[in-house]
Amino acid sequence: MSKLYRVGILGATGAVGREMLKVLEEHKFPVGELRPLASVRSAGSRITYAGEEVTVMETNDQAFKGLDIVLGAADKPIAMKYANAIQNAGAVFIDNSNAFRLRDDVPLIIPEINPEDAKWHSGLISNPNCSTIITLMAVWPLAKISPIEYMVASTYQAVSGAGVAGPRELLAQTAALAAGESIEIKTFQKQIAYNLIPQIGSFTENGYTSEEMKMQNEGRKIMHLPEMKVTCTCVRVPVIRSHSISVSVFTKDKIEVEDARKAIAGSAGLILRDDIASGIYPTPLETSDQDLVMVGRIRRDLTNEKGLALWSVGDQVRKGAATNAVQIAELLV
Amino acid sequence: MSKLYRVGILGATGAVGREMLKVLEEHKFPVGELRPLASVRSAGSRITYAGEEVTVMETNDQAFKGLDIVLGAADKPIAMKYANAIQNAGAVFIDNSNAFRLRDDVPLIIPEINPEDAKWHSGLISNPNCSTIITLMAVWPLAKISPIEYMVASTYQAVSGAGVAGPRELLAQTAALAAGESIEIKTFQKQIAYNLIPQIGSFTENGYTSEEMKMQNEGRKIMHLPEMKVTCTCVRVPVIRSHSISVSVFTKDKIEVEDARKAIAGSAGLILRDDIASGIYPTPLETSDQDLVMVGRIRRDLTNEKGLALWSVGDQVRKGAATNAVQIAELLV
Repeated sequence: MSKLYRVGILGATGAVGREMLKVLEEHKFPVGELRPLASVRSAGSRITYAGEEVTVMETNDQAFKGLDIVLGAADKPIAMKYANAIQNAGAVFIDNSNAFRLRDDVPLIIPEINPEDAKWHSGLISNPNCSTIITLMAVWPLAKISPIEYMVASTYQAVSGAGVAGPRELLAQTAALAAGESIEIKTFQKQIAYNLIPQIGSFTENGYTSEEMKMQNEGRKIMHLPEMKVTCTCVRVPVIRSHSISVSVFTKDKIEVEDARKAIAGSAGLILRDDIASGIYPTPLETSDQDLVMVGRIRRDLTNEKGLALWSVGDQVRKGAATNAVQIAELLV
Repeated sequence: MSKLYRVGILGATGAVGREMLKVLEEHKFPVGELRPLASVRSAGSRITYAGEEVTVMETNDQAFKGLDIVLGAADKPIAMKYANAIQNAGAVFIDNSNAFRLRDDVPLIIPEINPEDAKWHSGLISNPNCSTIITLMAVWPLAKISPIEYMVASTYQAVSGAGVAGPRELLAQTAALAAGESIEIKTFQKQIAYNLIPQIGSFTENGYTSEEMKMQNEGRKIMHLPEMKVTCTCVRVPVIRSHSISVSVFTKDKIEVEDARKAIAGSAGLILRDDIASGIYPTPLETSDQDLVMVGRIRRDLTNEKGLALWSVGDQVRKGAATNAVQIAELLV
């Protein structure tokens, strides 16, 4: 019998934590013990895993004892607070927050792209940003043909990227507007129903947001392309789930559109949905609640013959977060 | 007393036609006679203009007799059908359709950019594409500092760009989903509520849509930059009104971010909403139902130091269509 693993979920009751539970079950991850951890507010509640009820435990330094793997679905402050305790307990911490992603001693992994980086971890592996994952999944098959020199990307990010409060706020605002009532703005900076918000994350010195800089900073590390330049604009859109990215990718050597299509169609984790004559291209609705990233609208960039424009869409709670984390855990098994 | 003009509106009962009536009134255009024209279906209905009821007339070849100016708010086939009759009646046809925009003998005008082109018309002037207008308004102040060599743009286009049926379909789908009922898809290719559709217009040979090619083709003609290269991706978003564009603009010489801000702030028709520290940037809601294009998120493009990234938002029924057409008429007065 193959080994079973004792798996903890840090932040098990949030949007990503709940999805991690689903993905572990769907992927038939060899779970011996499942330990959902959350804040004291959620401790004592029950969740169902593989048909059995499991009690959510309060997170504290002692909560990780005996675990082999901890999947982190919590925010940066929580991740930073417990990282040492997790490693001291002897578990590998696969963290979805942005606390450790750029640290030289921490691998940052998309299993379809750089699984080899899982080999040099020292108890801590970071899961990349959601839009970065969905973009890189689409462009990596091109980077394998010729290195990417630069990219210009604009994102269309779903409200569930802000956690369970995101869809709740969008639907509540939509309902209030339909009833002619005033809306409440709490989770997002402005009204998101029937609107767009070109700010995700905090602003940085260079005028970009923290979210926008992730595509360059994390992309360089994951694809081992330290010189790659990326201009990114991140926009919140009134979509419940799945992020979309419009990107122009410029490679060292020209790649033919047909070769790009073949490379994407033949890559693990991707589905080519690119038949312009039949109106086939991915939309957020089609990609939600599943693990694959879908790519379409592949065509020659018109500003530079070494460029290709494309449209990549994926469920950011799944492949953009929970699924990718579980796939990293699978690399360790 | 200054001259009064006899003004016809071709397609007066559509979304753009109705807005043209509002803008003529708001701008106090010197209207002597107003003649709203529509299909036989709408003929006989009444509209209000400047406090008076006016009867909508059926469009036919004789309907333009005695008019000085005809504002075209109809689709390409209707524009093509009546262009000769309008010119034969001695009226100037200011057409919002894409029927004549690229013809060498037809000026294509954004009054803030190329008003001088109104001088050489021969009875027919075209109004540009909505996203093209909203993008060019923002980048023209930069082009005046240094010529634009290329742009990479992604659009976020409101449903009202598809006419009155667009908002109706979005709101009906949202209501149906809230009630747990099945939705109807008629105006757009797929569900638009809580979704995105990366197809506006028909597909062309090079893999771009007709809408996407307008920014390069019309942009070159309007800005007199025949070599300018533009890669554009057009996406329909579940927003009622106002189009947004995320664009990286690359000029011959480097323009400092501060100089770009000053140039945009000092240009007619534009409002700078760009204070990142205070979270100030334009959104579609703020720009709706008014004439100005708002610009924010101005920052150095990271792929090329001669590039600037920015976010431009404007009401596409107003400045993107009706207002721009009335402004062209004002050039003729």
